[in-house]
Amino acid sequence: MLSKNKLREELRSGLPVLVYDFKGREEEVDMMFYAGAVTTKSITTLRREAGGLICYVTGEREGKALGLPFITELLREVGLGELVKRPIYGDEPAFSLWVNHIETRTGISDRDRATTIRGLHEVVKMIEKDEEEAKSYFKRSFMSPGHVPILISRGIGRRRGHTELAVVLAEALGLERSMVIAEMLGEGDSLSKEKAKVLAENWGFAFIEGEEILSELA
Amino acid sequence: MLSKNKLREELRSGLPVLVYDFKGREEEVDMMFYAGAVTTKSITTLRREAGGLICYVTGEREGKALGLPFITELLREVGLGELVKRPIYGDEPAFSLWVNHIETRTGISDRDRATTIRGLHEVVKMIEKDEEEAKSYFKRSFMSPGHVPILISRGIGRRRGHTELAVVLAEALGLERSMVIAEMLGEGDSLSKEKAKVLAENWGFAFIEGEEILSELA
Repeated sequence: MLSKNKLREELRSGLPVLVYDFKGREEEVDMMFYAGAVTTKSITTLRREAGGLICYVTGEREGKALGLPFITELLREVGLGELVKRPIYGDEPAFSLWVNHIETRTGISDRDRATTIRGLHEVVKMIEKDEEEAKSYFKRSFMSPGHVPILISRGIGRRRGHTELAVVLAEALGLERSMVIAEMLGEGDSLSKEKAKVLAENWGFAFIEGEEILSELA
Repeated sequence: MLSKNKLREELRSGLPVLVYDFKGREEEVDMMFYAGAVTTKSITTLRREAGGLICYVTGEREGKALGLPFITELLREVGLGELVKRPIYGDEPAFSLWVNHIETRTGISDRDRATTIRGLHEVVKMIEKDEEEAKSYFKRSFMSPGHVPILISRGIGRRRGHTELAVVLAEALGLERSMVIAEMLGEGDSLSKEKAKVLAENWGFAFIEGEEILSELA
């Protein structure tokens, strides 16, 4: 695995890292960017080279500060709890709201999704300074529903998904809990770990396994 | 514009049609498939050649029958109505729930999204025969949150979006209100109408404008 310094440097310079979760779980590879370095071009890369949902990831503390609910709670609250089921690998989903920044046009273009994500990053940075202002800014500056799902980490002790791995990675590298991830897809199915490794090598992107994150970073 | 018969034949055989909405609205082109003909390969095409969110579209009657809320209603109900804002072009969003069929693995692969969409198509077909059974089957066979957003048409008289155009198209062709759509994206921005037209010609896919749908089909 790359050193922490090298990984931090790559993420801060706008390079992604490819992260495999765990054998027996999703067994999927996600492409991850640091949200503070996301540009329109990063979204184009996620869309073309990863192919899954392009999601913004933050921590539970940030989610609470901004008043972001888990969709599962919201569905239970309005009497749709029957629809909340667990996927085969067992965890409760990390999905919170889907949002657009108000300065987007339709919300879906690479440029618009980058605007939404950079806006979310700014709000998350704001929390440390003034939580009330961050929450109020969030409500003023974003609309829901939108085209960027927010995922909230429940902590790696409670869920071992890409959402939680992204947050552990950010914390270990001294970055804000503010990442962007998308699943890497292949022809028909999720891209295999082996194929993702080859791509990472070809592209010169770091490849990390969940086990390495837990043993060396968490 | 192609004749109704030819359009129906193409959609039923699994070919998409590219639909531009209206000048002064999104000014976007969506790629649309008839959900009853969707296969894993259709999702690969939507992902690689369209690039936007891959959404399932149905009508208001079907949404009501299945107990599907608009997300906007749900957000207002739980006190998050402040986040419901309108995009620049003015319409209230068509988003309902995001779902996975329970027989999917992670929900995001082309195969999994095709399974979810074919499942939704089956449920929508079921409504005509037995509405109660359709609703109960929907609750048993799908989970939310998931990776396929359901969009519900409010009727073309109330909203002139791709969701409503897809439903008008399906109705005019005698198909179920059961379509799959995704926005066509270009480098950074939404794909221009001109570029989409050229692609449609190269690929041999039909290209239709909202105005043509309204004047010749609605």
